[in-house]
Amino acid sequence: MTVHPDHYLIAAPVARLIEEFARLPGIGPKTASRLTFYLLRAEPKQAQALAQAILDVKAQVGYCRRCFNITVDELCPICRDPSRDQTKICVVEEPLDVLAIERTGAYRGLYHVLHGHIAPLEGIYREDLKIDELIARVRSEPVNEVILATNPNTEGEATAFLLLRDLAPLGVRVTRPARGLPTGGDLEWADPETLGSALEGRREL
Amino acid sequence: MTVHPDHYLIAAPVARLIEEFARLPGIGPKTASRLTFYLLRAEPKQAQALAQAILDVKAQVGYCRRCFNITVDELCPICRDPSRDQTKICVVEEPLDVLAIERTGAYRGLYHVLHGHIAPLEGIYREDLKIDELIARVRSEPVNEVILATNPNTEGEATAFLLLRDLAPLGVRVTRPARGLPTGGDLEWADPETLGSALEGRREL
Repeated sequence: MTVHPDHYLIAAPVARLIEEFARLPGIGPKTASRLTFYLLRAEPKQAQALAQAILDVKAQVGYCRRCFNITVDELCPICRDPSRDQTKICVVEEPLDVLAIERTGAYRGLYHVLHGHIAPLEGIYREDLKIDELIARVRSEPVNEVILATNPNTEGEATAFLLLRDLAPLGVRVTRPARGLPTGGDLEWADPETLGSALEGRREL
Repeated sequence: MTVHPDHYLIAAPVARLIEEFARLPGIGPKTASRLTFYLLRAEPKQAQALAQAILDVKAQVGYCRRCFNITVDELCPICRDPSRDQTKICVVEEPLDVLAIERTGAYRGLYHVLHGHIAPLEGIYREDLKIDELIARVRSEPVNEVILATNPNTEGEATAFLLLRDLAPLGVRVTRPARGLPTGGDLEWADPETLGSALEGRREL
């Protein structure tokens, strides 16, 4: 037999689903085929619910026209909430970052989701992010502080630096979350970069 | 705020998709939300292709009426292939096991997929598996050997033992794949059970 056994044996719809699952991030071919064979055996109702949920998310969910967080309405729940502090905007890379910050309960201001970070090598430039929209908000809204909560890595730092350059002339306070030792961590195991930031940012007791 | 931030913030269709992903085996809530936010950002075409592939698999794929392997036709490609050795049936637990054995290229007979193993504690009994269908095949087809390739674990052994009892009176040869040291493995690291089986099954050189 010259045909590869998998092609000879795996029915086309099965191969196609394995392929589609494997296109998702973090799902390799082994996991993709495990998920496919699971759905083959599952109740038709479960498979339909999953397919429908995927279609619904694309059809019903969009971006807040003010902060670009995800929402089913024109404005997201945070932008609609008058009790939020309208003088602060926390800038993040992704909608999941909003959730992470909300879970801390430590922030009551507004957000602005950039939808990425500057990465010229990956072909992501300033105009691909919601940066002009942020500048427009800072100009028109009663903002006095912009917190640049992009990721504490190279791309996030570069993006924050670029934003600082754009925001500085607008006379608004620009801050960045502290870098330091993670709570519950062990000083002995901290990487030199983190330990260095922690020492540099030390505070009076 | 007394509302849990996630419920307040995550739009219903997003929460529903996270939930559906998290019902899949090996997908925890973190991975489920990562996949959901990935699809939110993905091309609508990719999300539609995934949803359609899920629906197609359930609508178009069924089980071979002879061996219960998966197929889009009445008979699977192996049962339709007259060049396969019609005197041997290899009994496996799941359709994925057929693929694993086919990839070895070491077997040219037919298969029979039980769709599970005996596990009374999980409520899986003899009648939940395709055992009567196997007995009927051995009675009506020109079979002279049945290879019990259920998994080499407790449930697989119990299932093989039960099948042996049913097959013995039919005058057919009943075999089980050898247990021993895995190729490329290290004797020092083999578990006692495997090493014991390997010694017991030793062969003349």
